[in-house]
Amino acid sequence: MMATSGLKVEPTHMHTFTVRTSSRCEFVDITPEVANIVSESGAASGTITVYCPHTTAGITINENADPDVLGDMTMILELLFGEDDIDYRHMEGNSDSHVKSSLTGASETVIIEEGRLVLGTWQSIYFAEYDGPRSRKVHVKVIKG
Amino acid sequence: MMATSGLKVEPTHMHTFTVRTSSRCEFVDITPEVANIVSESGAASGTITVYCPHTTAGITINENADPDVLGDMTMILELLFGEDDIDYRHMEGNSDSHVKSSLTGASETVIIEEGRLVLGTWQSIYFAEYDGPRSRKVHVKVIKG
Amino acid sequence: MMATSGLKVEPTHMHTFTVRTSSRCEFVDITPEVANIVSESGAASGTITVYCPHTTAGITINENADPDVLGDMTMILELLFGEDDIDYRHMEGNSDSHVKSSLTGASETVIIEEGRLVLGTWQSIYFAEYDGPRSRKVHVKVIKG
Repeated sequence: MMATSGLKVEPTHMHTFTVRTSSRCEFVDITPEVANIVSESGAASGTITVYCPHTTAGITINENADPDVLGDMTMILELLFGEDDIDYRHMEGNSDSHVKSSLTGASETVIIEEGRLVLGTWQSIYFAEYDGPRSRKVHVKVIKG
Repeated sequence: MMATSGLKVEPTHMHTFTVRTSSRCEFVDITPEVANIVSESGAASGTITVYCPHTTAGITINENADPDVLGDMTMILELLFGEDDIDYRHMEGNSDSHVKSSLTGASETVIIEEGRLVLGTWQSIYFAEYDGPRSRKVHVKVIKG
Repeated sequence: MMATSGLKVEPTHMHTFTVRTSSRCEFVDITPEVANIVSESGAASGTITVYCPHTTAGITINENADPDVLGDMTMILELLFGEDDIDYRHMEGNSDSHVKSSLTGASETVIIEEGRLVLGTWQSIYFAEYDGPRSRKVHVKVIKG
């Protein structure tokens, strides 16, 4: 935010990092990368927006303790939206990936307090891959306040 | 944000525009309207929240290249949540629209960097209509930082 | 946001409140609590992020007029994701709750204008319980701007 009359408030910059996925559908824990960006930003208080610039993937927050939770999520999304039983028209064979992307959402916004991400005990931030394996980007933006 | 001791930082204002939809279920590309608001705000850096004040519609980000992607999304949402096969109790006949609204989400937050929306190559921002045709509002708020 | 050269802009602090849920799946209207936090923050303009730190619950915005809408949402989510017909692997018997959590989303961001939450006529903000009854936390963060 710019202050008036010559006073300058430094904007924070967007950060981008790469995620390499190894399956068609996969949840990659990106909490460490996001936490590092929070630390380096020096923000004591604010929010952070974690953004996926791809249309066959998304960002979600879920349990990090039992990997079966993420496996179950992959399974049920495939069961409901998978290509096999549905007469999709899009010829690339990844209409299910686009639908999963919109339902998951392109971003998550997390609160920063006392210089740290405020996540629940069992929460991690995941890159949700729905049309991998690919090399993907994640954009992250800290808003201080 | 207000600075202390008499220094005044101008708040940005919310912007509202109208979307006219022409079908019951439809995705309307509102990226140009949102991009214009970013330009006019003069924000070099920050985030923008695009918000839908209706309970039978939402905001989503998805592919803008092949219109079949959006057609497939309409089709699969209707297949899973449509009124025909499900014993909904709400008497207005649009329970499916409310469910789709919550799963799509009421808003999207996008990063602003170097004065521009940071969208992926294939991404557009869509108003997701689930109970049209109607005249709808979209609220947009720029946060500089 | 911190201004340069000794000028100090007071950060707003995160607020946390408790929600007690009474069913396994339930939507609790938390709009009054969120509206109070907006009032007390003194923010004339900005955004507010309402965040759920649990992985079997979420935050959503939907209709507050006819309770059948929320009943229908509970019903259809149970129909599609419920434990009965699906071979989930996670042994706690709440894989469906985790899936519903990710699809609902962990947070909602709402615009503040003229000191008030900008919600549509029929919109309320709900804590979406998918594995209750429990005592839950909600974190709320105001960003002025």
